[in-house]
Amino acid sequence: MTPSRWIPLLGWLPGYRRDTLARDLLAALIVTLMLVPQSLAYAQLAGLPPEMGLYASLLPLLLYAVFGTSPSLAVGPVAVISLMTASALGGIAAPGSAEYVGASLVLAALSGALLVAMGLLRLGFLANFLSHPVISGFVSASGLLIAVSQLPHLLGIEAAGGNMLERGVALVGSLGELHPATAAIGLGTWGYLLWCRRYLRGGLGRLGLPAMVAELAAKAAPISAVIVSGLLAWRLGLGEHGVALIGEVPGGLPSPALPSLEPGLWSSLASAAALISLVGFVESVSVAQTLAAKRRQRIDPNQELIALGLASVGTGVSGGAPVSGGFSRSVVNFEAGAATPLAGAFTALGIAMATLTLTAPLAFLPTATLAATIIVAVGGLIDLPAIRRTWAYSRADGAAMLATLVLTLAQGLESGILAGVALSVGLHLYRTSRPHSAVVGRVPGSEHFRNVRRHEVETDERLAILRIDESLYFANARYLEDTVMALAARQPGLEHLVLACQAVNIVDASALESLEAINRRLKDAGVALHLAEVKGPVMDRLAATDFCQALEGRIFLSTFDAWQALHGAEACRPVAERQA
Amino acid sequence: MTPSRWIPLLGWLPGYRRDTLARDLLAALIVTLMLVPQSLAYAQLAGLPPEMGLYASLLPLLLYAVFGTSPSLAVGPVAVISLMTASALGGIAAPGSAEYVGASLVLAALSGALLVAMGLLRLGFLANFLSHPVISGFVSASGLLIAVSQLPHLLGIEAAGGNMLERGVALVGSLGELHPATAAIGLGTWGYLLWCRRYLRGGLGRLGLPAMVAELAAKAAPISAVIVSGLLAWRLGLGEHGVALIGEVPGGLPSPALPSLEPGLWSSLASAAALISLVGFVESVSVAQTLAAKRRQRIDPNQELIALGLASVGTGVSGGAPVSGGFSRSVVNFEAGAATPLAGAFTALGIAMATLTLTAPLAFLPTATLAATIIVAVGGLIDLPAIRRTWAYSRADGAAMLATLVLTLAQGLESGILAGVALSVGLHLYRTSRPHSAVVGRVPGSEHFRNVRRHEVETDERLAILRIDESLYFANARYLEDTVMALAARQPGLEHLVLACQAVNIVDASALESLEAINRRLKDAGVALHLAEVKGPVMDRLAATDFCQALEGRIFLSTFDAWQALHGAEACRPVAERQA
Repeated sequence: MTPSRWIPLLGWLPGYRRDTLARDLLAALIVTLMLVPQSLAYAQLAGLPPEMGLYASLLPLLLYAVFGTSPSLAVGPVAVISLMTASALGGIAAPGSAEYVGASLVLAALSGALLVAMGLLRLGFLANFLSHPVISGFVSASGLLIAVSQLPHLLGIEAAGGNMLERGVALVGSLGELHPATAAIGLGTWGYLLWCRRYLRGGLGRLGLPAMVAELAAKAAPISAVIVSGLLAWRLGLGEHGVALIGEVPGGLPSPALPSLEPGLWSSLASAAALISLVGFVESVSVAQTLAAKRRQRIDPNQELIALGLASVGTGVSGGAPVSGGFSRSVVNFEAGAATPLAGAFTALGIAMATLTLTAPLAFLPTATLAATIIVAVGGLIDLPAIRRTWAYSRADGAAMLATLVLTLAQGLESGILAGVALSVGLHLYRTSRPHSAVVGRVPGSEHFRNVRRHEVETDERLAILRIDESLYFANARYLEDTVMALAARQPGLEHLVLACQAVNIVDASALESLEAINRRLKDAGVALHLAEVKGPVMDRLAATDFCQALEGRIFLSTFDAWQALHGAEACRPVAERQA
Repeated sequence: MTPSRWIPLLGWLPGYRRDTLARDLLAALIVTLMLVPQSLAYAQLAGLPPEMGLYASLLPLLLYAVFGTSPSLAVGPVAVISLMTASALGGIAAPGSAEYVGASLVLAALSGALLVAMGLLRLGFLANFLSHPVISGFVSASGLLIAVSQLPHLLGIEAAGGNMLERGVALVGSLGELHPATAAIGLGTWGYLLWCRRYLRGGLGRLGLPAMVAELAAKAAPISAVIVSGLLAWRLGLGEHGVALIGEVPGGLPSPALPSLEPGLWSSLASAAALISLVGFVESVSVAQTLAAKRRQRIDPNQELIALGLASVGTGVSGGAPVSGGFSRSVVNFEAGAATPLAGAFTALGIAMATLTLTAPLAFLPTATLAATIIVAVGGLIDLPAIRRTWAYSRADGAAMLATLVLTLAQGLESGILAGVALSVGLHLYRTSRPHSAVVGRVPGSEHFRNVRRHEVETDERLAILRIDESLYFANARYLEDTVMALAARQPGLEHLVLACQAVNIVDASALESLEAINRRLKDAGVALHLAEVKGPVMDRLAATDFCQALEGRIFLSTFDAWQALHGAEACRPVAERQA
């Protein structure tokens, strides 16, 4: 429990070296170039003024540098969290209004506070409730929703509300009203960015640039699009020709302010904040873990909860857009060589300089450019073939993914993810509610026992050995009762039944009651229940109950011991007498 | 798929014999004597007029006799279901009003229809979501609520609403207003019934009666209390002295009628109907299975869903109170020798005769007598020591039981049971989210591998074998990633990591992605991932994915095979070269 356990910066800063500084500075420079357009774009996606995107890349990055454990994770505005914020606030106020901005700060602070609380209570396991298929379906749906939400900006037509289908129909209906100059900029940027993504890296490589430099140049393409389209808009006076521009961005750094403390607002945002914090955490941690593993480093998920939570609280008190760990940005940070979280702090410095110097020229930036940036960025989120792939592996998981995707598109983000979680949990319980079990017999001449249906094995009509291939808990306890009683009813000469428990890792209170009921019922039917191969921790628990006393039969160390003791006429005599 | 699969009566009726008839008739007689006061009492508990209790013991019993698979289960009004009905209808209409009665018929028909649908869709596993601790906590709380709800009837004071605490305080405050004659009858009946329960059986046994006859006489005690208190009330004119009597009961049999089909009413009762059907089903099936096992018989849970559902629909279309399988009544039925479901049909005949002949005298029956009958009956439901017992076995289960009990008392039946289910599921996922795993080494000179922390075993700094003691699924997939990467970070010379999967029964899509991530990350760190002892069904699934191609290492049949192949310098050479 050293201070560096809670403030990892104290652990790595004293050993900081000059060569590390150079790597961190280079990574920070490249991430800054990437982050400026992303910050503006994701603020637009969240329905917030552009400067809030820049503010979100200041204090949160500094806080993460102090408290985070990943040297590579680049915190800042991200697409999915921005969409979730817009969705949560849509019912509360008009996008861009002061009330909307205030509510977004409350939402960021609240989800940050939840993350910190989860970290302190070590509740990181709650993120496990979001299974991979649910996350994947949710992220794909979010990507589609984001792309559709940006098409009106891209083409210069009026946006329409409603669900995915209604929006699509409205968009197609108003295609005739598109604004030619806006659409030219939007579609031009889109095409340019796609070209950069597909060909720039290879082209630069052929020109003799090192692969990594070519890679990073391709990733920094959006900044060139921002500069060119901004210059064009300024020189051609596109704003006066009806092209929507970002408009005046206040200069200077944000001043800290507490978000509103109105309890009604907090409670109405609580469920959205909980989902945002879970989704942001899951995405950030999986990025951070992937990157850490490449250098045989480790991150601490519970400390990550605290660091991401403080970053989110930080954005809430410094007037920023919602933040989380970004995927592509972290990869760029890693590949550019970021060695410590200080790279993030340097990025914050870079953004601060941009905020102080660039706000005047940014006013000329067309929103269509940002829309194109967003659409290209979220293209990587949409992975529809994953549904078929997952379905082929497991229908239950495929169904959960598809349901999450469809419900997120049709019913909204919260319903989609909650239905996905409920379905994952329900399907898991269903899958384990009929545990695989097999009646086994002895492989002749050996100590091995195999399924009687698949192998030629020795059996005994007075002795049945049932191997259970699952932990016993409430969801399958009654199925076990049913399986055992069916076996007893099927085999009229039965006198001994052995449950072979080598795969039973847990016996919960429901399963214990079921075992007691099985023992009682078998006894009523003149059959003795025995156990074999009970694991140590399970046995410790059973030993503390009345079950072992009530057990009609014995507990054997191995299935073979049980076979030796119970097989053959002699051993069965006592029960036969008891029945008479 | 023979007709007798769906109509079990067709299976057993053709072989019906005279000696079975005598046994069924005797059982029916005794159950009828027990059922008359219970029917009246549980109708009162449900807030329904007394004749509805009798009607509930006619058509439903006939339907269960045709469709049911248990020869012993005695269907009719039961305490917990009556309480759940009263609770569900309390917010809709005033107890006893025509609207209330109509809604109760809809509720019975709806929960019956749900049961039939679950049976046809073979969804009996849904009942597994109600774990033993949750059911036990819920039933105990229901018993307490029922007892408290009957105290005003017992003592002749005004009932007060609110939760358990408010009712208790109101009761104590109005004890001074108790009606002496009513309280005398109520407390007298209570004392008499307790005396019968404790001493009558033993006393009759000492007088030389066979044990079974004494047992049944004790169980039929309530009918004598009903007769005596009814006679007293009639002769002494207690009704004119302010003792509440049942009052006029309409004579004759009920006429069938469809319940209201108003969609608003159906949808407002849907969630209550779902809970009632699940609770009724779980209780009925566990009684039926216990009794069937005593004679090595089996019941078919999915057919039971259909039979109980039709019985419940039957009560809804014949003006009856809600029905389910009753515990004590079924035990009496079994002990009296009921051999086929025809015993239930004979019971229905007995109740029909009672309905045709006894309604005039029943008008004089004091409600205090019925209250005492109910209170004594539910005494057996309340099992508070079970909380301590369950807590001692498993804190998670004990907490779920306590939470269900407390929330049912404080917040009502629906909140209590839903919170219990959510808690059971959540705690189960938590429990399996950190699966037990152990780094194992070779027991020298053998093919056995044991935990390195507990045994003196051979290990190899370039090879780690991790045994996983749990199925791999979304709730523990990330924990596995963490465990493996921690192991790799701890052991810098590591070149091979083997996951020993003998206890892994499932690998869901989330866990597959985690295995892929582990493989990728270990590869980045210069470590090869291998698997060993993968079970057949798990291997079949993995073989159909890209995972086996992507896997850096191999899949070994046994841990020993893996040890032989990877242990020692020679085998490690290729990886060492690849890293260089």
